[in-house]
Amino acid sequence: MSETPPQDRMKKPKDIILISNDDGIRSEGIKSLAKALKKLGEVYVVAPDRERSAASHSLTLHRPLRVEKVGPRQYAVDGTPTDCISLAVNRILPRRPSIVVSGINQGWNLGEDISYSGTVSAAMEGTLLGIPSIAISLAGKERFNFKDAADFAVRLTRRTLKRGLPKDTLLNVNVPQMPRAKKIKGYRVTRQGKRIFDDVIVEKVDPRGKKYYWIGGDMVKWEGGSDTDFHAISKGYISITPVHLDMTNYLSMNEIKDWRF
Amino acid sequence: MSETPPQDRMKKPKDIILISNDDGIRSEGIKSLAKALKKLGEVYVVAPDRERSAASHSLTLHRPLRVEKVGPRQYAVDGTPTDCISLAVNRILPRRPSIVVSGINQGWNLGEDISYSGTVSAAMEGTLLGIPSIAISLAGKERFNFKDAADFAVRLTRRTLKRGLPKDTLLNVNVPQMPRAKKIKGYRVTRQGKRIFDDVIVEKVDPRGKKYYWIGGDMVKWEGGSDTDFHAISKGYISITPVHLDMTNYLSMNEIKDWRF
Repeated sequence: MSETPPQDRMKKPKDIILISNDDGIRSEGIKSLAKALKKLGEVYVVAPDRERSAASHSLTLHRPLRVEKVGPRQYAVDGTPTDCISLAVNRILPRRPSIVVSGINQGWNLGEDISYSGTVSAAMEGTLLGIPSIAISLAGKERFNFKDAADFAVRLTRRTLKRGLPKDTLLNVNVPQMPRAKKIKGYRVTRQGKRIFDDVIVEKVDPRGKKYYWIGGDMVKWEGGSDTDFHAISKGYISITPVHLDMTNYLSMNEIKDWRF
Repeated sequence: MSETPPQDRMKKPKDIILISNDDGIRSEGIKSLAKALKKLGEVYVVAPDRERSAASHSLTLHRPLRVEKVGPRQYAVDGTPTDCISLAVNRILPRRPSIVVSGINQGWNLGEDISYSGTVSAAMEGTLLGIPSIAISLAGKERFNFKDAADFAVRLTRRTLKRGLPKDTLLNVNVPQMPRAKKIKGYRVTRQGKRIFDDVIVEKVDPRGKKYYWIGGDMVKWEGGSDTDFHAISKGYISITPVHLDMTNYLSMNEIKDWRF
């Protein structure tokens, strides 16, 4: 039924959508994302062969990497999310992808998580390679339901394919996991929130009488500004934080230039 | 010979200087740093028990941590640089440190390394805790000579103890390793440079005929702006990059708010 003549259709190949994550290629989150984005282009999944949330975010330089084709347009890599994007773009894909979408991560990536997250690091690598990139995480703790996040990923990916993203900037998206029968309220463009660190270290004694320490991760609180990613999520909104890869504090450069020491 | 009356001296206890790194507590770099900074205050070293360059930068939440006192004011932790700073400030130190100095790292931390480096992550954790923090790295590849870097750390630490640092901002310092008989030219306040990614992946076949890939880390090039950290180092200057922990691209927030999708 299309009125586009065949030769025009041939001129513009389908967009390649490159998907990765840090939970590993078998995670439910990446499967939901890949399935949802199929309607927008040719989806390739290039992801770690297992969970890499705690892996370094840098490129693996000290050993060779293996790539295994595990399905149509699906590749498992024994490396970090960063490795996956680099290998995909430089070796695996038949042409340059139009977008990188990383996720859907099981658990939020808010505030300083941006610096540490493997999910975000895949989007960073895409951005470094000059490809518009999005990281998407589900801000829940258990019984993950990826539907809302996958739906939103489709909307945001469609928009980004059409219009691109600001230079050197990725989007870090968090979608709240809503309690049953509650709906997401919408989305907010947010800034990166900030943890408040209490003295949350628990000191105990082991069976042999030796002290040990445990950092209490669940007790972390957040700065309460109403424009932060954290605040949006806590109120039932999706947060979209534009993340700039350049961390230079330009405003302070001149001040420091004036120092005498 | 001091003219300060004893009661005044008692009022102001010595500054605590907290030192950490990611090369491990036994590295030459941290020893040089600790020795050099002794003249400025009470130096505590709280550092990983072994090399943690490839470790995650996040807090260790999934297991307990052990702290071993390995010398006067020296503590080895079986965790990441981030863990070290958290444990030191919340548990180990007798009072709050006046400054965190991380390093001296064996090898540079330039450009995007800032996001990945364990050395910088210790300074990030200090900054998050509201303590002025500096990361210092020696931009060399072998036969490391830490003298120049240690001397500069003293100057910069003295200045920072007196005057502090801009809010939420750490200093990422790289010191060039000079060839014998050449002197460092001075220092420059720089911005974070940017790698240029070529297709540097080497594809080979193993003895069993299976393909493998190796990412060619040494072939990485850099964007050449004369105000970058990379440029300063390449010209024989020390680079000081003020790094802001907030990665939000504020300029693009309004643009994204206007999106309709």
